[in-house]
Amino acid sequence: MVWKVPVLQCSWLHLFSPKMLGRVLCTVLFVGVFPSPAEASQGHISVILLGATGDLAKKYLWQGLFQLYMDQVSSGHSFTFHGAALAAVEPGQRRMFDVLKRLSCPPDEAPDRCAVLKDQFLKLSQYHQLKSAENYTALSREIESLLAQEGLHEAGRIFYFSVPPFAYTEIARHINSSCRPPADAWLRVVLEKPFGHDLPSAQQLATELASFFREHEMYRVDHYLGKQAVAHILPFRDQNRHFLDPIWNRHHVERVEVVLKETVDAKGRTSFYEQYGVIRDVLQNHLTEALLFLLMELPANVSSAQDVLQHKLQALQSLWELERSSAVLGQYQAYHSHVQEELQEAQGRVSTTPTFAGVLIRSDSLRWEGVPFLLTSGKALDERVGYARVLFRNRAHCPQSGTLRDGGHSPCKPRQIIFYFGHGALGSPAVLVSRNLFRPVMPKDSWKEAEARSDLHIFGQPLSDFYVYSPVRERDAYSVLISNIYHGRKDSFITTESLLASWAFWTPLLDSTAGQQPRLYPGGVENQQLLDFEMVSGAAVAFSTAEPAQLLEPDPPKPSEFRAIQPRFRQSPLVAAWPEELIARLAADMEAAALSSVGHTGQFHVALSGGSSPVALFQRLARHHGGFPWRHTHVWLADERCVPLSHGDSNFQSLQRHLLHSVRVPYLNVHPMPVHLNRRLCVEEDGGARLYAADIAALVHNASFDLVLLGVGTDGHTASLFPGSDSGVDGAATVVLTESPLKPHQRMSLSLPLINRARRVFVLVLGKGKRDITALLSRVGHEPHKWPISGVRPSSGQLVWYMDYEALLG
Amino acid sequence: MVWKVPVLQCSWLHLFSPKMLGRVLCTVLFVGVFPSPAEASQGHISVILLGATGDLAKKYLWQGLFQLYMDQVSSGHSFTFHGAALAAVEPGQRRMFDVLKRLSCPPDEAPDRCAVLKDQFLKLSQYHQLKSAENYTALSREIESLLAQEGLHEAGRIFYFSVPPFAYTEIARHINSSCRPPADAWLRVVLEKPFGHDLPSAQQLATELASFFREHEMYRVDHYLGKQAVAHILPFRDQNRHFLDPIWNRHHVERVEVVLKETVDAKGRTSFYEQYGVIRDVLQNHLTEALLFLLMELPANVSSAQDVLQHKLQALQSLWELERSSAVLGQYQAYHSHVQEELQEAQGRVSTTPTFAGVLIRSDSLRWEGVPFLLTSGKALDERVGYARVLFRNRAHCPQSGTLRDGGHSPCKPRQIIFYFGHGALGSPAVLVSRNLFRPVMPKDSWKEAEARSDLHIFGQPLSDFYVYSPVRERDAYSVLISNIYHGRKDSFITTESLLASWAFWTPLLDSTAGQQPRLYPGGVENQQLLDFEMVSGAAVAFSTAEPAQLLEPDPPKPSEFRAIQPRFRQSPLVAAWPEELIARLAADMEAAALSSVGHTGQFHVALSGGSSPVALFQRLARHHGGFPWRHTHVWLADERCVPLSHGDSNFQSLQRHLLHSVRVPYLNVHPMPVHLNRRLCVEEDGGARLYAADIAALVHNASFDLVLLGVGTDGHTASLFPGSDSGVDGAATVVLTESPLKPHQRMSLSLPLINRARRVFVLVLGKGKRDITALLSRVGHEPHKWPISGVRPSSGQLVWYMDYEALLG
Repeated sequence: MVWKVPVLQCSWLHLFSPKMLGRVLCTVLFVGVFPSPAEASQGHISVILLGATGDLAKKYLWQGLFQLYMDQVSSGHSFTFHGAALAAVEPGQRRMFDVLKRLSCPPDEAPDRCAVLKDQFLKLSQYHQLKSAENYTALSREIESLLAQEGLHEAGRIFYFSVPPFAYTEIARHINSSCRPPADAWLRVVLEKPFGHDLPSAQQLATELASFFREHEMYRVDHYLGKQAVAHILPFRDQNRHFLDPIWNRHHVERVEVVLKETVDAKGRTSFYEQYGVIRDVLQNHLTEALLFLLMELPANVSSAQDVLQHKLQALQSLWELERSSAVLGQYQAYHSHVQEELQEAQGRVSTTPTFAGVLIRSDSLRWEGVPFLLTSGKALDERVGYARVLFRNRAHCPQSGTLRDGGHSPCKPRQIIFYFGHGALGSPAVLVSRNLFRPVMPKDSWKEAEARSDLHIFGQPLSDFYVYSPVRERDAYSVLISNIYHGRKDSFITTESLLASWAFWTPLLDSTAGQQPRLYPGGVENQQLLDFEMVSGAAVAFSTAEPAQLLEPDPPKPSEFRAIQPRFRQSPLVAAWPEELIARLAADMEAAALSSVGHTGQFHVALSGGSSPVALFQRLARHHGGFPWRHTHVWLADERCVPLSHGDSNFQSLQRHLLHSVRVPYLNVHPMPVHLNRRLCVEEDGGARLYAADIAALVHNASFDLVLLGVGTDGHTASLFPGSDSGVDGAATVVLTESPLKPHQRMSLSLPLINRARRVFVLVLGKGKRDITALLSRVGHEPHKWPISGVRPSSGQLVWYMDYEALLG
Repeated sequence: MVWKVPVLQCSWLHLFSPKMLGRVLCTVLFVGVFPSPAEASQGHISVILLGATGDLAKKYLWQGLFQLYMDQVSSGHSFTFHGAALAAVEPGQRRMFDVLKRLSCPPDEAPDRCAVLKDQFLKLSQYHQLKSAENYTALSREIESLLAQEGLHEAGRIFYFSVPPFAYTEIARHINSSCRPPADAWLRVVLEKPFGHDLPSAQQLATELASFFREHEMYRVDHYLGKQAVAHILPFRDQNRHFLDPIWNRHHVERVEVVLKETVDAKGRTSFYEQYGVIRDVLQNHLTEALLFLLMELPANVSSAQDVLQHKLQALQSLWELERSSAVLGQYQAYHSHVQEELQEAQGRVSTTPTFAGVLIRSDSLRWEGVPFLLTSGKALDERVGYARVLFRNRAHCPQSGTLRDGGHSPCKPRQIIFYFGHGALGSPAVLVSRNLFRPVMPKDSWKEAEARSDLHIFGQPLSDFYVYSPVRERDAYSVLISNIYHGRKDSFITTESLLASWAFWTPLLDSTAGQQPRLYPGGVENQQLLDFEMVSGAAVAFSTAEPAQLLEPDPPKPSEFRAIQPRFRQSPLVAAWPEELIARLAADMEAAALSSVGHTGQFHVALSGGSSPVALFQRLARHHGGFPWRHTHVWLADERCVPLSHGDSNFQSLQRHLLHSVRVPYLNVHPMPVHLNRRLCVEEDGGARLYAADIAALVHNASFDLVLLGVGTDGHTASLFPGSDSGVDGAATVVLTESPLKPHQRMSLSLPLINRARRVFVLVLGKGKRDITALLSRVGHEPHKWPISGVRPSSGQLVWYMDYEALLG
């Protein structure tokens, strides 16, 4: 093999001994990166590795930088590598060179070339103590004077932050103020996770960083984006568009799984782990990134980083909000003692940090609607493996017995595409495509077809059922990413926008599961079926089996035990619970009411209120209540704001977005309030209120709704009936125009007498803000002019209050 | 075992020799069915078996009648059995007794009791020649005088028609006129299929029978309803409601398969088979009946025959209409020579009768929407087996490797419920439920749990993965049905209504596939993957593999080869094809237009016409075009009838039923014409037309629709613009009120100038009835007052004609 390295001609390299390195850098530079005439103009790149003697640097980063040097030595760029840490030059320099001396040569590199390059790499590397502003200024000056001396122009500087996140701000400030390259050179700062531990902390960190760096200067690393099988998802989708276009959608995909299983536990890392847990450690970042590559719409040009990032962000934004019931959580049994040993915790304290999580994610996009995405990760499991797997629906029927037939191609065998991250049965990254799907197009220079061994099984199928591809050259994720930083490929990194979107997605789950006791599991093969979980409704998962008694700690008291404090409120039944449970109960009661009405009369007439409280209810009805008799339901509005129906403030618009869009109510059964007639809003003479009342009289038997859903304002208003106004409080059962103290002022509303004709009235009250009004309502009698809600007393129907604990107890 | 038979006391039974039977029947009767005092009042039942020496009678019916006698001998009813045929008493009687002598005793019957009962049964059986009206009168008199003599009252008569269907009418007439029982006794006539060979013939037969019998008197046999595993579907669903209620729906069921595979071919039966084929022979009746038991809503009371029949009929009516693409058809290769040998057909004639069919059925019900139902049957396949199988979705994720675990209960194993009709690996009827589903409730007196052998596999799973139940006592289907006839259980039989509904469902497929060349298959295990088929879209199936060349006969010329006769019509592009293909092409072109508009402007504004032609188009769009950008589509009407929107005649109603109900167009994007304002229809002063024009102006850029879909009337009208009227033909681009020569007379319509602003106008013309107008239009120029359609000339848009061959060529 012939390889070209300009430095080979430099026979005088041996003149410099390692201990002279600090002082003779400029000369070495001249030699090691001597640009050939054709490539003279590329400029010099300084790489500053902060945390140069830390674990990550030892294990991956120096090796990645050495790989970069080997790959780019002939690119025309010259390089210097500056390890930095808080320690003084002695012992920092010694520690760093201990690491550098152990750098290995990749198996596909000619040993003699590698030896020469390693020697050069060592000479180009230097240790710096970076502690004070002065240190940064000195480093900057050193780089500048060195380049001036060598007549090189500066192309850019890479600062790699391999330091704990609490140090970020300080370092960022120093770089920005004292160590920026000249204006015509670029700055790239590389940041390692964690990037916060929830949305507010991530936002704070992002804001701080934004005061020092511009967005295009920051490279947030998720090393999964450098894993070869993950990095190939988009190119695979692009190169196989012809096969995938017809099937990459809800009609053909049965489910998507993204999984990282570990056999190790958190021992020795609990001080970190106890603050993060598996969701922050693995799901929020690695698995989400891999998932998004599968879900995102494919840009016409996948090499446009901007398009890729934008489409990925859109995919993230299409996901349903996570709820407590979206996840199952586990903790390996020994974790408790690991925490107590390492953190010297009090015996009584019970850690609820999950070390296992299974999460069900759904998308609202037309492409993926209804397809479950399952993210799973855990420590102390039975094997180490990671993969993303797209499982297609079985659309075939094979009348003849399978045993007699050629296996791999039978259309009745499972059909899947697997991006295998590594480890596990295969032991290396791979891309697998079921033979009964298609033979994929793969780039021959980077992926080679592997032997399809039938003795090896994967997901219950012999490997010979797949086309299997493995990388021509296996590359460590950090090497890949360091190369991408060098090339400025921003789509391999996490933008601020996408980071915050990801935290915005995960934080509600983290909040709602905080303090929840995870299921305990013994660890390793003994876990058996203990961690199996199932989708129990559109958006919820649950463990398949009951928890065996011997693993259970005594239960801490649960909030639900505080339930049923007060069975009645204002002489009517009261349902009190935490919000999620309350909404679930209300939705179930609504479905029961609907089924009962449809059973009796063939129809269900429901009048719904606007506002923010019912949004969660609408979503729950849309997602968890597939049996709701929508086809026989008439949807009315209890009140409306006088804005066009397409306006964002319109109650109808919210109803459309959160409910009607996802269920099948016949068009003629939907009854928005006619607030917009003759191109004007709620003008008395246009008779919108009269029109609505007439529609009700014509369609709703006896003008008696089967169900009216109401809320309560902090001022005691309900529907759009406000305190101190006579409109709609007394008199006929009709529809009225009213005035709100808040904008938009004009409203249309069912009147109290009309509401009180209903067969059922359910009042939903959520949140601490309602505490005062509920306290007041529990005391006052029938004073509808002061507090319209107090006038809700169905004459022959049923009234039920649904309150969360905060509204009830403050 | 103790058994009670009153006749045992009759020691003088031996006095009667078989040859005396005819004359001494009365005495035997007295003896054989001597009612005990407590049961004296049940009365006498005469069973008349027409076709008493035919194949079915020999093989099943006499045995079934004997079983009935064994079961009911102590019921208090007395019986006589009258075999009848066209043959004279000699040899008819001899032939019949040859059969009777060979009647066997069931294994669970004590041999000595059975021997005595068989002896009695023979003595109670008599042969009659039934040919002329006199014969029937004589039979009736004989029964009456016998009963008078014995002092017995008549409970009822059962006439079992085991005769070819051409004989039905004649026999029915004779029974009705000459052999009805007295008014206080019942008549039950039992009919064997075929009940016609398509909807018109079935209707004719039903009408004829209805002139002789009342509905409740007719028992149409489908012997599948007597198969134990089929008959147990409803009881199983009823007894396991608790488990099934949450999962027996589209959210949990992945697919339903009903399969009957045969190893035999049609040899020796081709004179029958050539007229019927596999769809009429097996799918229209047996498989449909089994399917309906699975699909129907479960009545609260499953023992109410009326409720069962009604729910079954509703399930049948919920099914999507079948299209040519709903089925794959095959014919075993030797069939051709069997036909030629048996029917002495000319060498050149190619039979297209299918001997294999796979059909995809869909339901429109809320419960089953989206779930594929696959019906498959064929001759000359690799094994004999029949089953109905409900396969549930895999909703579980099992993080630990399956190999380490207890198999049967893993939630990640396939979950299914199988009603196994018989034969196959199990060799007998069975009900199987996956152990990871639930342990079913089974009636202990009729079903017993079978050993779950793990060496036996079924659908790729060891039998030990299932709870397996087999009948305590295996009973032949005819025995079960004869017992049900005796008990008057009408829900085990096919009502006229449901028979006609079934033919109405199957006939369109039979018609559209008539003459289509089925795929040839070699037969037996050699079929291999040749008959595998796949769902290729919502409602279509296709064979998975290409047909191997060596099996192919030279292709007969296909209609599609006549295509592309005339590429233009009235100077505009013309698409001509057979109707189904034409609709498919139009739907695809509409989707392309929609995607293009949404791509450019973010919206797609389409105006659709009413009438019957677009219905198939709407259905196709709803079912085959999952990628249509409905969320960004605005739907307008091209014209409307002045009836309330909920009226059956409303164009909007048809649009709602066939399209909008199945897709997701946001509520505010749907624009019905305001024909119903102020509680009156299309009154000029209400300004509905002005209102619609204003809406169009406000929402549609430049009032230029992206697409207008039109039809053509035989009089040359289009939208609701009729010949001889000025309204809407000239002048402004607006919306007009018009008058139709047909009811309802009043209409609202887009005007020609408004239509001609559209970017695209597609005109759909279907059917022979349009031949004259298309011929005329091909000649005339621009004469919109005479023929409004001739005025459709988009000023800057594109006009395309979509015509089927019949409209184009007559």
